Amino acid sequence: MSEKRVLVFNPGPAALPLPVLQKIQEEMLNFRETGMSILEVSHRSREFEEVLNSAVERIKRLLSLDERFQVIFLQGGASLQFAMVPMNCVEGGKPVAYVDTGYWSTKAIKEAQNIVDKVEVVASSGDKNYTYIPKKISLESEFSYLHITANNTIRGTQWWEFPRTGNIPLIADMSSDIFSRVFDPHPFGVIYAGAQKNAGPAGVTIVIIREDMLERVPRYLPTMLKYSTFAESNSLCNTPPCFAVYVVELVTQWLEETIGGIAKMEEINRKKACLIYDYIDSQDFYINPVQPEDRSWMNVVFTLPSPELESKFVKEATQKGLVGLEGHRSVGGCRASLYNAVSLEAVGMLVDFMKEFARRNG
Amino acid sequence: MSEKRVLVFNPGPAALPLPVLQKIQEEMLNFRETGMSILEVSHRSREFEEVLNSAVERIKRLLSLDERFQVIFLQGGASLQFAMVPMNCVEGGKPVAYVDTGYWSTKAIKEAQNIVDKVEVVASSGDKNYTYIPKKISLESEFSYLHITANNTIRGTQWWEFPRTGNIPLIADMSSDIFSRVFDPHPFGVIYAGAQKNAGPAGVTIVIIREDMLERVPRYLPTMLKYSTFAESNSLCNTPPCFAVYVVELVTQWLEETIGGIAKMEEINRKKACLIYDYIDSQDFYINPVQPEDRSWMNVVFTLPSPELESKFVKEATQKGLVGLEGHRSVGGCRASLYNAVSLEAVGMLVDFMKEFARRNG
Repeated sequence: MSEKRVLVFNPGPAALPLPVLQKIQEEMLNFRETGMSILEVSHRSREFEEVLNSAVERIKRLLSLDERFQVIFLQGGASLQFAMVPMNCVEGGKPVAYVDTGYWSTKAIKEAQNIVDKVEVVASSGDKNYTYIPKKISLESEFSYLHITANNTIRGTQWWEFPRTGNIPLIADMSSDIFSRVFDPHPFGVIYAGAQKNAGPAGVTIVIIREDMLERVPRYLPTMLKYSTFAESNSLCNTPPCFAVYVVELVTQWLEETIGGIAKMEEINRKKACLIYDYIDSQDFYINPVQPEDRSWMNVVFTLPSPELESKFVKEATQKGLVGLEGHRSVGGCRASLYNAVSLEAVGMLVDFMKEFARRNG
Repeated sequence: MSEKRVLVFNPGPAALPLPVLQKIQEEMLNFRETGMSILEVSHRSREFEEVLNSAVERIKRLLSLDERFQVIFLQGGASLQFAMVPMNCVEGGKPVAYVDTGYWSTKAIKEAQNIVDKVEVVASSGDKNYTYIPKKISLESEFSYLHITANNTIRGTQWWEFPRTGNIPLIADMSSDIFSRVFDPHPFGVIYAGAQKNAGPAGVTIVIIREDMLERVPRYLPTMLKYSTFAESNSLCNTPPCFAVYVVELVTQWLEETIGGIAKMEEINRKKACLIYDYIDSQDFYINPVQPEDRSWMNVVFTLPSPELESKFVKEATQKGLVGLEGHRSVGGCRASLYNAVSLEAVGMLVDFMKEFARRNG
């Protein structure tokens, strides 16, 4: 059946590694000799705890997290984290700080403003339509934390040097670039990521929390909205989204054992990004509006000479089995999402199609 | 591979219909001619919206919900609903009322007490170790709602006649008995159900909300904690747990098309329950402590003459491919969960094993 498969450039839910899908298929009726589907296995069983613990350990190894960090699995996506971060992470009434790099950051800011009194937007790239990442972050006062969106899927920007915040914990939404490149986790108090781009299917949020942040969790919060509830129970306070955790385990296994770790993944992602950006910079039919040093390796946005040509491009690409190339509905244009499971070969085929389409329509 | 499968009596995650699992397996690499896995399909695609809308329509038909009810899909399980109900459903400062039938009700009450000032426990079966369902509910004051747990998985009790509440909306946790029997939805303001027992896999919560309840949602709540956010966006405010919704669609399709609807399902569930309770009542090796008219058809709890025999029973049953028969860790004993996907034949095999075990050990 795999020969009928298309090349998936979806922004999320997104491409998953074929061996992961094959493994899910293979054991759907009988999960590891249990005689049950993974969908039927109890979350309190030894078999499921092994899956969950393995996912945690793989994430810790992949990201070089030391014992100060805990990995927990939540639900509700990054959108629920937009609320849980300000609910859980304020320290001693100090204001919270955000950088606005567009759409997702803007949503996170709006949600925080609804929850805490003092939200300061310390930098924004809104002045240039979010086509760059702010470099000068002014952190003159004391803040509870500084929140950033590590990669903006819609604007196609990515932080390549994280802000230096001294003692102020960084908090990052890494939904769209977790596991895509090496970074130092130590400045981060909380990292959260909806799994459906680089880590698994929709339906589970990976949250990485440094132990000192757990001390900030207010006692009065509802049980299911406290990070501490999940940290204290190894994510088993109630029934977790077992299947999604299982797929995260398979994806992280693939990253460790097939790819060879995050440094190797980063090398491949660099090649993929170079291939398409080098081509875009070599011609003027496709335009990428992002300041070159802030370009995302995960989401490559581009426009064509007209909206009509953009529609035609997306349509013909789809017919050729290259799918998911529409831009986000809020900005239009085109976008190719090159998450970890998108191979260098797939990007090569996309670039070939772009060249051929430009030749015919340029 | 199916011949190696065991009979699953798990309390949740629980048995799923084999044809559902086979369908998932069959289309895992290529979902309905998209050339993608359902795990890769965009939640904004026509294909996924069809799945979601079909699940909604099937749930409405199965439960005879009229146009005043909306079906939405949330995450976080019933445990998050324990908080969302009091956050969303208080009307004009009126107190909220709960019936305590043990464990899950108790948790819901505790969570409500943390969120609203006036929580009244209007009835409880705690005086007799939760072995019955309270019949006389005193609702003398005005209440925002009355909350019940329709079926208690741990104590093995089930409401067979819902309390008459007049103008006070009933709110029910139906996680463990939704779709198992016919009931009149009209008195209910909100029904919620974690899917992992009768409706699908862990990772999605079905919420049924009557339109008048949406008017109660306070504006100041975080976006992802408002029922209205999901009602206004057809559950697409952010990326939903797509795979879990897809499995719910398959399970509800199986209920409609293979079983023939809820009345037929109820008939089968009645036969299953009679088979095991009639046997239990015919001997004294296995004891069910629940008042007969309040017994659950979904979770049959029973004790054996000693904890040692209970362990031996569970162990030998497992060896024979009858799994999930341990009682909940909070109460011990044994428990057979007979959710919709557990066939009459499977219950017959369980009863045969119970007889044979009693003969050898009685």
